[in-house]
Order: sequence, then structure tokens, then C-alpha cells
Amino acid sequence: MQNVISFLDSNKERYLNELTEFLSIPSVSSQSNHNGDTRKCAQWVADQMRTIGMQNVQIFETPGHPIVCSEWMGAPGKPTILFYGHYDVQPVDPLNLWTSPPFQATIRGDNLYARGSADDKGQVFIHFKAIEAYMKNEGKLPVNIKMIIEGEEEVGSANLENFVKEHKQLLKSDLVLISDSSMFKKGVPSVCYGLRGLAYMEVEVTGPNSDLHSGTFGGSVHNPIQALSELIASLHDKNGKVTIKGFYNDVRALSKKERAAYKKLPWSDKEYSKNLGVKQLYGEKGYSSLERVWARPTLECNGIWGGYTGEGAKTVLPSKAFAKISMRLVPNQKSDKIAQLFEKHLKRIAPKTIDLKVKALHGGEAAITPIDSPGVKAAVAALEKGFGKKPLYQREGGSIPIVVQFKEILGLDTVLLGFGLPDENAHAPDEHINLDNFFGGMRTSAHFYNELTNYWGNGKK
Amino acid sequence: MQNVISFLDSNKERYLNELTEFLSIPSVSSQSNHNGDTRKCAQWVADQMRTIGMQNVQIFETPGHPIVCSEWMGAPGKPTILFYGHYDVQPVDPLNLWTSPPFQATIRGDNLYARGSADDKGQVFIHFKAIEAYMKNEGKLPVNIKMIIEGEEEVGSANLENFVKEHKQLLKSDLVLISDSSMFKKGVPSVCYGLRGLAYMEVEVTGPNSDLHSGTFGGSVHNPIQALSELIASLHDKNGKVTIKGFYNDVRALSKKERAAYKKLPWSDKEYSKNLGVKQLYGEKGYSSLERVWARPTLECNGIWGGYTGEGAKTVLPSKAFAKISMRLVPNQKSDKIAQLFEKHLKRIAPKTIDLKVKALHGGEAAITPIDSPGVKAAVAALEKGFGKKPLYQREGGSIPIVVQFKEILGLDTVLLGFGLPDENAHAPDEHINLDNFFGGMRTSAHFYNELTNYWGNGKK
Repeated sequence: MQNVISFLDSNKERYLNELTEFLSIPSVSSQSNHNGDTRKCAQWVADQMRTIGMQNVQIFETPGHPIVCSEWMGAPGKPTILFYGHYDVQPVDPLNLWTSPPFQATIRGDNLYARGSADDKGQVFIHFKAIEAYMKNEGKLPVNIKMIIEGEEEVGSANLENFVKEHKQLLKSDLVLISDSSMFKKGVPSVCYGLRGLAYMEVEVTGPNSDLHSGTFGGSVHNPIQALSELIASLHDKNGKVTIKGFYNDVRALSKKERAAYKKLPWSDKEYSKNLGVKQLYGEKGYSSLERVWARPTLECNGIWGGYTGEGAKTVLPSKAFAKISMRLVPNQKSDKIAQLFEKHLKRIAPKTIDLKVKALHGGEAAITPIDSPGVKAAVAALEKGFGKKPLYQREGGSIPIVVQFKEILGLDTVLLGFGLPDENAHAPDEHINLDNFFGGMRTSAHFYNELTNYWGNGKK
Repeated sequence: MQNVISFLDSNKERYLNELTEFLSIPSVSSQSNHNGDTRKCAQWVADQMRTIGMQNVQIFETPGHPIVCSEWMGAPGKPTILFYGHYDVQPVDPLNLWTSPPFQATIRGDNLYARGSADDKGQVFIHFKAIEAYMKNEGKLPVNIKMIIEGEEEVGSANLENFVKEHKQLLKSDLVLISDSSMFKKGVPSVCYGLRGLAYMEVEVTGPNSDLHSGTFGGSVHNPIQALSELIASLHDKNGKVTIKGFYNDVRALSKKERAAYKKLPWSDKEYSKNLGVKQLYGEKGYSSLERVWARPTLECNGIWGGYTGEGAKTVLPSKAFAKISMRLVPNQKSDKIAQLFEKHLKRIAPKTIDLKVKALHGGEAAITPIDSPGVKAAVAALEKGFGKKPLYQREGGSIPIVVQFKEILGLDTVLLGFGLPDENAHAPDEHINLDNFFGGMRTSAHFYNELTNYWGNGKK
């Protein structure tokens, strides 16, 4: 074990160079002009797996982007980890807000900046190197590991569920391990036991059948931008509650114990709002900020567009206006049902002056993992060794729909071992990963494989 | 006179070829990448003026786009017309909604399609050809004519007012003539006696200081798209009235006579909404559609943007959202004052959860022209001869700020002789001009120069 950790600590420069290469491939899964890059990235992942000693490396075609799988099964009688990650990344616009080019990894201070550095290439890479360190120093791993790295996480993992269903034998394991989330805060390692789900919608409002001159027609037809704004404005009441009928019906209430635990966390609303640059926070009345993002369903506008958006003034009354609106869900809300409620609600409240189209783009369910499972216990032990500190238990506001699918299809619980930080701009310009967490993550991953054999061995499966 | 009209009727093919050349120059004044084209277009106008026999042709530089002037002063003792028009055009986006390329004039049915065909190159060209027909057939015009054709009408004519102030002697005339508006409807010629003013604003809402992951942060800060939507939604009440404090204070009420006259016009709300493709019209309660667009102030969203607007789903909680919002004004509202009221109102209602910036992009005043002036009477007579039908009196919802400036600086009334149609997509894709109106406009313009000498001679100045 000491060999492995020493090896990790003495190869940092090489790791940064290799990661830079991984991050230089613009594998933006939502943009079809990057399809070639996304494929190239799948190939990079496969090559890397072979390099570190994984076996049976395969690139599987899907109707979308490829899925890369591999395994090392040389530890008979030991538990088998199914490691899941994704090699695709979010779009980079607005490009002008990046301090350094998004696909050219750049170190500033304690951070490495690039699209995908935190979400999720950087975190996948951490495990590649932990595995490599075992193989190079001991010629074997303490557990069996299967890896499945997909290229469509940022667009809803549309083809992953079918793949998992069709490859149950290939993916047969004892637990799922994912590193695609954040620690509680810098210097505070944590293990995540809950995720929110997602229902992502697109709304199209059509007013007149053509763009019109806003002088000649202004005042006689319902402006679609105005109508869309009125719809959006009506989706929250004055207490910050979502007004969609039935939206909160299936929400699992926060237990008194959870609320009490959250109150004890090292958290400051003042510091939070200062970091975000807002004078005042906003949210559902009656809940703290952590409760709002971890355990309450919310509705966000992710994009809006319509009419003239260029330089200067154009006096147009546009024909159409659009919005992308997503809802974050908590147990026991169902993504499909919420998408239907959203559409039904909007169609009910839409005025007769406009036409409305609602489209569900993608969705995923929320999840809660038992905190007394051997996987979570091994994670806690590994984090303490990797970072020299007892970790906290936390939830996370983001969504990893595949967690629910692994449970439903393969019957597996997931351990969420996140090495990101909440302010690392995962989906925004200047995405970065903290280098202490990057290297601490490698040590933790290596410890996790080892610790798992202890907890599993105690029959706590 | 008969020579002139016959000449106009027998040169149609040549006119269409020349107009096509004029329309092929993409003189988009609001987009600086078209500055070269805009300059080229000014040169085209100057060359055309020389070709048709205008004298003292000059291109004047301004801090923005050039102004082209010329004159023909060979009719001593007769009135002098100051003809105003503009050679600049609106942007063409969204380009994909054009049936044929915007700068490649294309005839389909009775219409010629191109950006600028109606607004205003096509209408300026009508007068070039009416003048040319006199010069070629009679060697002179029945009146004196001065022309001023600018290149910044679509961006608020920022440099025209100063130019007029500094060239009072050059522009000294008896009345202003403008062809930059529409007839009442197809086959119904009309003379326009009123225009709306404009106050065009841009609003910027800033939430968090960076784009955020909508999962990790969603529900804890005020989403700027949501906040902007809430602001926009609040700008109209449930009766379609603008809620800005003091907005209606200076509005000149419609007279009983005007309201009665409008009721008699050949107008059908049913046909209007059918043409626009809307199930139901929208507007200020208590007023008819014509009253709403001609004589009531209104507020329109001309553009909105923020967050992710590309293909697919991006789970971002954006830092900023923007809107372009303009208000159409009526006598006796003042553009500056309304812009201030707008800013004051928005700053008052903006929540503490966001930062708000408001910028006035440009403005212009509304106008009313006396309908018993000799210019309007000559226009009525000319329209009857040009189109074979008695014209109606109408107002127009659009804005020509220069009308007010000609009144204030030069003391001149303006005759608005519009040959466009309300549904010709002046600021939208597939802008076009009806060819019957195009050629009827030429005959009318030729008659107008002649008729003016009659009415002016009767001392009705």
C-alpha cells in the first residue's frame, strides 16, 4: 500500500501532462459538430485503459456516442467495483468569459482550469492513475474492477440505460463507484448520500406567424417574449414555491435528524452570497440554503431567447420566443410525471393569444444511498486516509440519473466519492479542479479499493 | 404630364433592374461589419442622383454613416420640396426564415422581395424615377426639389439632427416629403397624418457573478432569467395597460371625431388576426386595434437572451439575462421623459436579489400633421390620379423621428406619402414591396410635384 501511495506522490508532473492531453479533446456531446472529437475521446479512454493494465477493453457503439468498458478480474473472492464515469463535457459558451482557452488546461494558483477538469474527465483520470499505481507497483489490484465510461452524461445518458440492460453479465458487480460530485467545501472531504433528479424541458411560444415591425403592429398582438415572460414569472409564487399543480405531492420530507445535522455543518449564508456576488439569496421560504439545493425540488430557467439579440436596436415584434427550463427533483418525485405536470400546467395557463409547444428534453430520478452500507463505510475510511480528515456526510443538488438505473437494472448501490468543489464552475466558464483534491483524490481512490476488502470481508455486504 | 406618365409606364423592366442593384448592397447600419457596404450604398445614391439630373450632389461625412444631398432649383417662384429618405436597412436575421436571399431581389407573384424593398430603398427609388421621367421628357421639374437621404434611420438617426441644424440654408424649403410609410391596405391608397414616437431601452439583469451549475446551486439564488421575466411580466396589467408610473400622463386623448372616423375604415379584426396567424388579438382594453397601434402608446419586447440557447440541454444557472424593450409613443409624450420613467420604474421594482442596468439606446417623438395643409391636399389629389381612387386619411404606428426635427429646426410640415403595405415585413424576414404600389407610387409622385404647384398657387401655404 505504501508503495502505491509513494508512487502516486512522485508522478504528479506526468499526471498533469497526461490529464492535459485528455482535456484537450473537445468532447462536447450536445453539439453534433464535435461528434468527431467525442469519438476521438472515447478512443483516448480505451487507450488509457490498456496502458494502465485494464483488460478486455471494448468501445461499444450506440445510436449516440460510444461507451467504453474494461475490466480487471484478477482478485477472485474479492468484491467487484463497477466504476462509472463520463468522458463527454458541457458546451463552452460564452467563450469570452474564459480566462484561458477551455480545451487548453492551464494552472493558476492551486487550480487546473479546463472544460471537463472537474466534470468529469479529471475525476475519471484520478481512478485511472490509482489503478495504474497498483498495477505498476504490485502487479495487481486488491479488488476486481470493471469500468464503464460513457459519452452522453451531459445530454441525459439517452443510450446508457439500454446498454446496461443489454450487458447485465458484462457489468455484473457488487457495487457502483462514481466520482462525479463535489466535496462539501475546500479542505472538508465528504461522502455524498443523496442526489437530485432532473426534468429538462424546452418551451416554444409563437405569437404572430412572422416577425413584425414593432411600430406598425405593437400593441395589437401578444408579444411572444412578453407572453413567455408572463408564463415564467407565474411559475414561482411570492414565497419562492413552484406553482405547478401537484409539483410537491411526492416529495420525501426532510427528517428532523437531517435538518438538525445540516444545521451543524460549517456553512455561512453570508460567505455563500458573497462568493456568488449577490446582495441577497433567493429560494423557497421555510428552508435553509443547503436544504433548498440538496433536499427540495426547484425550477430553473437555463436559457431564454427570442427577437433581436444583436448589437444596437432593431424594432421587431418577434414571431417566437423560447426557453429551456429544468426542474431538480428529490425522492420520491418521478421525472416523467413532473415533466407531464409541467406541460399540463403550462398548457392550462397559456393565454389564447399565443401558441405553446412544450418538449421534454431529458430526465433522471433522484437518489438516496444507505449510509451504513460497506461501500459508504469504505469511502469514509479511505477519505480519512487520503485527506487526513474525517469526512462529512452530505447530499448534492445535481443529478446523476444513472445511479437510479444501476439500482433498478443491476440491483447495485452506488458510492459517490466526489473530488470536485461546489464553486468549480462545472457547467460554466473557467471550470477547474483543485490540485490538492486531485492528488488527494488519487490517494483516496487507492485506499478505497483496499478498504473495501476490509468492510466487505466483514460480511457487511 | 402625359409624356411623363407614359415614360414611367414603359420603363418598368429597367426600373426593376436598377432597383435590384440598389437592394443588393447590404447597407445594415446597425452592424459595424457592414460599414463598407453602407458607404458603398451612399455612393450609389449619389451616382443615381447625378444620373437622373439632380444637381449639387454631395456626400457629407458624419460621425456615423454619410448623408447624401442634392437639389434641382430650376423652377423659380414655385415651391421647394425637401424629400427625405434613408438608404440604410434593418439587419436580416433570422436569415433562415427568408425564402430568397435578402440582398438578391426576387419577384414572386405581385411582390418584389428583398431587405429594404419597402423600408425604404424601394420608396426612395420611386422618387428617383419620377424625377428622371420629368427630366428626360420635359427637361425640368414643375417644382424645386431638394433631397436628403441618410444612412442611419434604422439606428435612430443620431447624426441627422445636428446635420439639419448645421445646414439650414442648404435644406431651406417649403415642405418636407417622405415616402417611408404604408398605405392603409392593398388597393386602398391613403395619406398618413400621424406617427408614433419611440423610446428604445436595453435591460441587463445580473444574478450570481458567474454562470453556475443549475443542480448544485438551483434554488438558492434568484435566476436572472426568472427575475427578468418577472420584471417584464409586471410591465403590463391584466387590461393590457403599461404599468410604468406616469406612462400615460402626457398622452393626447383620441378625439370623438377621430374614433368615429376610424370605425368607418375598411377594417376587420378577424381578417387581421387571421393574417397574423393568431387565435386572439391582445392589447389595451377599451381601444380598437387601429386605435392601439395608431394612437395609443405601447411597450414591446424586441429581444431577450440569457443562458444556454444552443442545441440540446445545458444545465446552467446563468449569471446574466438581457432584454431589448421599446415603447411606442404618441403626442404629447416626450421620448426622453418616458425613457427616464422606464428606468426609474424598473429600478424601483427590481428585487434586491439581482443587479439591474438600464440603458436608453435611442428615441424619437411622435407627430401629427395638419390635414388641411396644401401639401396634404396635393398628396390626396396625386394619390387619386396615381391609383385611380380617393385615398383615406390614416395614422401609422411606426416612428419617423426626423418629422419632428424638421418641424422644430426648419419649421416645416411633412407630407407622408407611403407606398408600402402593413404586411410587407418591413423589419422581418421576407420584406417585400407590392409591384402595383411600386409603379402606382411613381405615377403618384410625378403627379404630386405637379399638383403641389396648384395648391401652393392658391396661397394655401
